[in-house]
Amino acid sequence: MEKLNKGYTQIYTGNGKGKTTAAIGQAVRAAGFGLKTYMIQFMKEYPYNEIKALENLKEWIEVVQCGKDDYVYKKELPPADEITKAINGLIDAKERMLSGKYDLIILDEICVAIYFKLFSTDAILDFIKSKPENVELILTGRYCPQELIDAADLVTDMTELKHYYQKGVLARRGIES
Amino acid sequence: MEKLNKGYTQIYTGNGKGKTTAAIGQAVRAAGFGLKTYMIQFMKEYPYNEIKALENLKEWIEVVQCGKDDYVYKKELPPADEITKAINGLIDAKERMLSGKYDLIILDEICVAIYFKLFSTDAILDFIKSKPENVELILTGRYCPQELIDAADLVTDMTELKHYYQKGVLARRGIES
Repeated sequence: MEKLNKGYTQIYTGNGKGKTTAAIGQAVRAAGFGLKTYMIQFMKEYPYNEIKALENLKEWIEVVQCGKDDYVYKKELPPADEITKAINGLIDAKERMLSGKYDLIILDEICVAIYFKLFSTDAILDFIKSKPENVELILTGRYCPQELIDAADLVTDMTELKHYYQKGVLARRGIES
Repeated sequence: MEKLNKGYTQIYTGNGKGKTTAAIGQAVRAAGFGLKTYMIQFMKEYPYNEIKALENLKEWIEVVQCGKDDYVYKKELPPADEITKAINGLIDAKERMLSGKYDLIILDEICVAIYFKLFSTDAILDFIKSKPENVELILTGRYCPQELIDAADLVTDMTELKHYYQKGVLARRGIES
């Protein structure tokens, strides 16, 4: 099986649409080349449709969800069990990254998880620093701290120029969620 | 099978990474909901890995490539046969959009195709205007003309904040192509 010679750290951030979808598209593209992806999604505990479709690619793309985000809407800090869950998820992701079994690791919504105090920026900086040479790492989520931008190789800011949410449209199944 | 009640026109533009990958991720998400996608890629005539992986989702996602882009590198205008090919591809995509068989239509790199004179902006404006209510339309590519931005419901500008290409790295198989 082909492996990456050199992997980089990519970040998709900004207030626009397409951060998670870009990461998924990247995993699909990598799968076409036989590369293996592990994606962990933070603060997303409901059945997103991309996960259902990705089951057809499960030989190459593994997706897990880790933790929920209801405390955000209650304007509360994350409860202790959510922090524990998140940290265990990150530790597991790091073990997988170091295992040599995966070519692409995606920490989906990790920047949001930092923003809402599930992780310190330093914890994620350490994660980036421990990335093996031949693994590609993708971080997504709005509110990316500058320290992570400085540490990454590729940073794309998705800027919302225009959005129908502004017209009062709710999220539609199969499109937004 | 479930259908979209209301479809919108989305554009992913800008000089950053992730425009096509966001569109593919969107198709994968829609597939998880049983929605059908037709994606036509302009000016991309070689086997991108996403197409290989998407074969596993071919029940939901159909991808065709239409035309090449070698004249760009020769700094020439598109030859007549490439223009014909592109126009036929667009007509076919329009027929599919109007057929009721697809929920999501993706015109990948269409903005680039306008920029390089394969299409007039008006031809694509007409395409947007003929979109049925329950179809989602996604246009991608840098250099999006303002007229299309005005006509779209959702526009995301992918801005490159930092890129390892700047370090002289070539496109890597499975990641960039």
